[in-house]
Amino acid sequence: MQLTTNLLARLGLPFEKHVISAHRMPQQLFEFGKQAKSHGFSVIIAGAGGAAHLPGMLAATTILPVIGVPIQSKALNGIDSLLSIVQMPSGIPVATTAIGAAGAKNAALLAAQILALSDDKIANQLVEFRRQQTKEAVESEQQL
Amino acid sequence: MQLTTNLLARLGLPFEKHVISAHRMPQQLFEFGKQAKSHGFSVIIAGAGGAAHLPGMLAATTILPVIGVPIQSKALNGIDSLLSIVQMPSGIPVATTAIGAAGAKNAALLAAQILALSDDKIANQLVEFRRQQTKEAVESEQQL
Amino acid sequence: MQLTTNLLARLGLPFEKHVISAHRMPQQLFEFGKQAKSHGFSVIIAGAGGAAHLPGMLAATTILPVIGVPIQSKALNGIDSLLSIVQMPSGIPVATTAIGAAGAKNAALLAAQILALSDDKIANQLVEFRRQQTKEAVESEQQL
Amino acid sequence: MQLTTNLLARLGLPFEKHVISAHRMPQQLFEFGKQAKSHGFSVIIAGAGGAAHLPGMLAATTILPVIGVPIQSKALNGIDSLLSIVQMPSGIPVATTAIGAAGAKNAALLAAQILALSDDKIANQLVEFRRQQTKEAVESEQQL
Amino acid sequence: MQLTTNLLARLGLPFEKHVISAHRMPQQLFEFGKQAKSHGFSVIIAGAGGAAHLPGMLAATTILPVIGVPIQSKALNGIDSLLSIVQMPSGIPVATTAIGAAGAKNAALLAAQILALSDDKIANQLVEFRRQQTKEAVESEQQL
Amino acid sequence: MQLTTNLLARLGLPFEKHVISAHRMPQQLFEFGKQAKSHGFSVIIAGAGGAAHLPGMLAATTILPVIGVPIQSKALNGIDSLLSIVQMPSGIPVATTAIGAAGAKNAALLAAQILALSDDKIANQLVEFRRQQTKEAVESEQQL
Amino acid sequence: MQLTTNLLARLGLPFEKHVISAHRMPQQLFEFGKQAKSHGFSVIIAGAGGAAHLPGMLAATTILPVIGVPIQSKALNGIDSLLSIVQMPSGIPVATTAIGAAGAKNAALLAAQILALSDDKIANQLVEFRRQQTKEAVESEQQL
Amino acid sequence: MQLTTNLLARLGLPFEKHVISAHRMPQQLFEFGKQAKSHGFSVIIAGAGGAAHLPGMLAATTILPVIGVPIQSKALNGIDSLLSIVQMPSGIPVATTAIGAAGAKNAALLAAQILALSDDKIANQLVEFRRQQTKEAVESEQQL
Repeated sequence: MQLTTNLLARLGLPFEKHVISAHRMPQQLFEFGKQAKSHGFSVIIAGAGGAAHLPGMLAATTILPVIGVPIQSKALNGIDSLLSIVQMPSGIPVATTAIGAAGAKNAALLAAQILALSDDKIANQLVEFRRQQTKEAVESEQQL
Repeated sequence: MQLTTNLLARLGLPFEKHVISAHRMPQQLFEFGKQAKSHGFSVIIAGAGGAAHLPGMLAATTILPVIGVPIQSKALNGIDSLLSIVQMPSGIPVATTAIGAAGAKNAALLAAQILALSDDKIANQLVEFRRQQTKEAVESEQQL
Repeated sequence: MQLTTNLLARLGLPFEKHVISAHRMPQQLFEFGKQAKSHGFSVIIAGAGGAAHLPGMLAATTILPVIGVPIQSKALNGIDSLLSIVQMPSGIPVATTAIGAAGAKNAALLAAQILALSDDKIANQLVEFRRQQTKEAVESEQQL
Repeated sequence: MQLTTNLLARLGLPFEKHVISAHRMPQQLFEFGKQAKSHGFSVIIAGAGGAAHLPGMLAATTILPVIGVPIQSKALNGIDSLLSIVQMPSGIPVATTAIGAAGAKNAALLAAQILALSDDKIANQLVEFRRQQTKEAVESEQQL
Repeated sequence: MQLTTNLLARLGLPFEKHVISAHRMPQQLFEFGKQAKSHGFSVIIAGAGGAAHLPGMLAATTILPVIGVPIQSKALNGIDSLLSIVQMPSGIPVATTAIGAAGAKNAALLAAQILALSDDKIANQLVEFRRQQTKEAVESEQQL
Repeated sequence: MQLTTNLLARLGLPFEKHVISAHRMPQQLFEFGKQAKSHGFSVIIAGAGGAAHLPGMLAATTILPVIGVPIQSKALNGIDSLLSIVQMPSGIPVATTAIGAAGAKNAALLAAQILALSDDKIANQLVEFRRQQTKEAVESEQQL
Repeated sequence: MQLTTNLLARLGLPFEKHVISAHRMPQQLFEFGKQAKSHGFSVIIAGAGGAAHLPGMLAATTILPVIGVPIQSKALNGIDSLLSIVQMPSGIPVATTAIGAAGAKNAALLAAQILALSDDKIANQLVEFRRQQTKEAVESEQQL
Repeated sequence: MQLTTNLLARLGLPFEKHVISAHRMPQQLFEFGKQAKSHGFSVIIAGAGGAAHLPGMLAATTILPVIGVPIQSKALNGIDSLLSIVQMPSGIPVATTAIGAAGAKNAALLAAQILALSDDKIANQLVEFRRQQTKEAVESEQQL
């Protein structure tokens, strides 16, 4: 999730990071989720692996958008993480991204895209981020 | 995707529905994506099955949040749809929901949760939706 | 889970059944788990499907043994339910049984086997159950 | 399975460890299972990989609770081990834990949770184990 | 397995059929396997589904060739049966055929091919069976 | 894809190589596909990994044959790449090859086989390539 | 494969259809493949299911492009067919399409796209086919 | 397959080893299979990976028992090899063993078990092999 916070920082978005283990800290999970909105959070990004219950359980306790990042697990390469996060039953959504590093980065971008709906400065940063990203891709061809 | 629009209507969210086939209408996909923001859309929900390229390609053309719903495919039950949508490379996120009906409904709820960040009326509706949902679940116990 | 309670009843084990949705009733889940031991429960059997968080989250709130039954889900036939239940991280175990009907019945038998450790009457019933089960299997050969 | 015995030792639970290969030592498997209860065992923990028949076959010979740990196999990363252990037919349950190290540790904890039903000292140890585990998780946040 | 015995009968091979449940009749499994060779059997065909332990455990008790047929299971379509049968550890082989009907028929043919090594009459029957099978396939083209 | 161009060069086929990211360069993808035929290309070979949309989206913009090569992805070993490329809906085909190195080489050979339909020189080269390939395989036996 | 021939007929492409079973008619497979080019065929489309060896073995006997269509198998829904066809080793390519009906239709289109490289009439037909296909997709929106 | 020949040598079984690539040497495959019986072979062991067609195609050309060993492939860890070998259609069986090293060794043992049906010396060797194998397993316990 370091990739997530690095990208949030690069985009200039304020964030807090917390360690919450769904299974070892259920009380903290529950309280964090219930109070997240009143504490001023806008979007929650939760990474988890294996039987990955953290994103879904946080989503059950708040109406803030929750982005779930499936961490690549040891035995099953994150397919367990992915299914545990994305296959939420009707009623409680989790916005799921890709397994591993790509998903961790994209969680930051998705959060920014959500916040950009009501913040033109972030929108402009995203437009610039995309422009730069495309420029680098195009330039990589010239080095073939 | 009928389940999505039903739920959007129930939540009182204005929406448009369009048929865009990534592979049969690439030009339309491209133009829709590029103009979505200037046309006043806030969130795009795209359902697709099999080699499901629609959500990711839309996401590549806009900075609006794109929610991808993996449709249950015939042969592989939607695991192809899911992986084609969720495994996006770093740089372009798609907020992926569950395969099939649950994902279609949750896409509407996720869109509402995103919009609720800057719209207290939608936030209140979601709180009420959740309250009702919990109430029905609790009452179902009494019918055991 | 009707198969579970039918078998518990046949074995003469007292039980309660409750509807608890991990995602729609997180508060109830949390309170049930925390109070289960003091309320006199010995074993908890929890069935869940898809992103099946109920067994693992109950296990996180109690030291009672929790038996998880993966329900056969619509799109993925319960492989999502199975991985969401069995792939628990170190520290919080869930005793997982098979997907679907066999797992629902075996959850009841596993609970009985656990209780039989300190209850000879249940142990005797299980011995008789097994004897009968073997007898029926043997007799089925005679009908070939 | 070293992780299992380490944790059993830490919890102060008496145990024996044996090498029993279902396929190379079927006679020993059979005799061990049949005599396990009369020999004073309470819970059997069996780790196996690939076509993992040991837990299920032991369970077929005893009414003691059998905990099966799927070992991470070389080619298929333990998905074969998991399915061979968890997909038991109706009538003979195996309490299955996660693939690999997490499952090995959780097997010890599950055994302890089962024994704690009739042993308050073990119950107290588990409460303390959980308290410590949560404490460490909480403290890890402070090192972010 | 009716398909197996039908084909064995068509090929004129003598056979016995038995119901042996690995988990409900472990004693019978064990005794059948140990005595199969002295009782005059040449090849054992065992069908099993889910956590399919019958073929491997029979193979562990005899040096007769054991053919395992993975039965199509309800939830996982026989992928669990296949892996439980084919992924045997080094030392005890099981000759595995396809999941379901094709595997049931091919088990009979494989047994015949094995017996044909020392029985020219069976070999001739197999040659004729193949000739007929090819003829029917060729003729099916003429009906296009 | 270096393996592809190496083999194209060895076969003496003229080619261009380009970097086109479906998600970072959608505009370029779109324009390249639409103009490929008029620019004189005959066959397009596109490698992509994860949610691999490049081959299918190129195929949607041209009637030239498009060969898709699933790149071995980090978490899921290319099964996501394969399904994203091969499971195209009716109407827009992608000629898919194997995951990874074998697929990259075979894409070059498939392109050559397509071009050989109207170019006897390429056909002769392929016949010679195959003859040599078989010769090397046969000779490898002599080194056993 | 009826879907394939229907579409070939609609596109006005001449074709022959044959029944060749890789396993029941290996001699015919071998001879057909070796003579296909001299018999005037340009492209071979082969559908097969389960352990689907037909496309790959045909490809091994000819330098004509071979298109493989994975038929949806009973137990494994065609994932076995797909992997048996697409995962060809380096040296012998098979142009693989989607599992089932979509793949059967796309095989015809892919063959047409290959032939169109040297036949402007076919190219024009494909352009018209695509135009019509897009038109129908666009019109379906108006019926929402 | 070195593991196979090592074990065949240890068991004193005469064997030949050949390199036959199904796709690079189809002519040789075809001729080897058709002549294998008249050349005095009794059992054929064929290892193959990926789209593994060798065992099935050999089986299609002979009535000798064919044992297929799925080699662990690079991208998919041999699940493609396994399905390509085991999922044979009705009519042509392949006796499939485990993926990788265990399957390679067990192929040798299975061949020996087949030959032992009409050769008491081989049968005695297998009994001794098993006795030794069990002894080593039992002794490994004493080193715990």
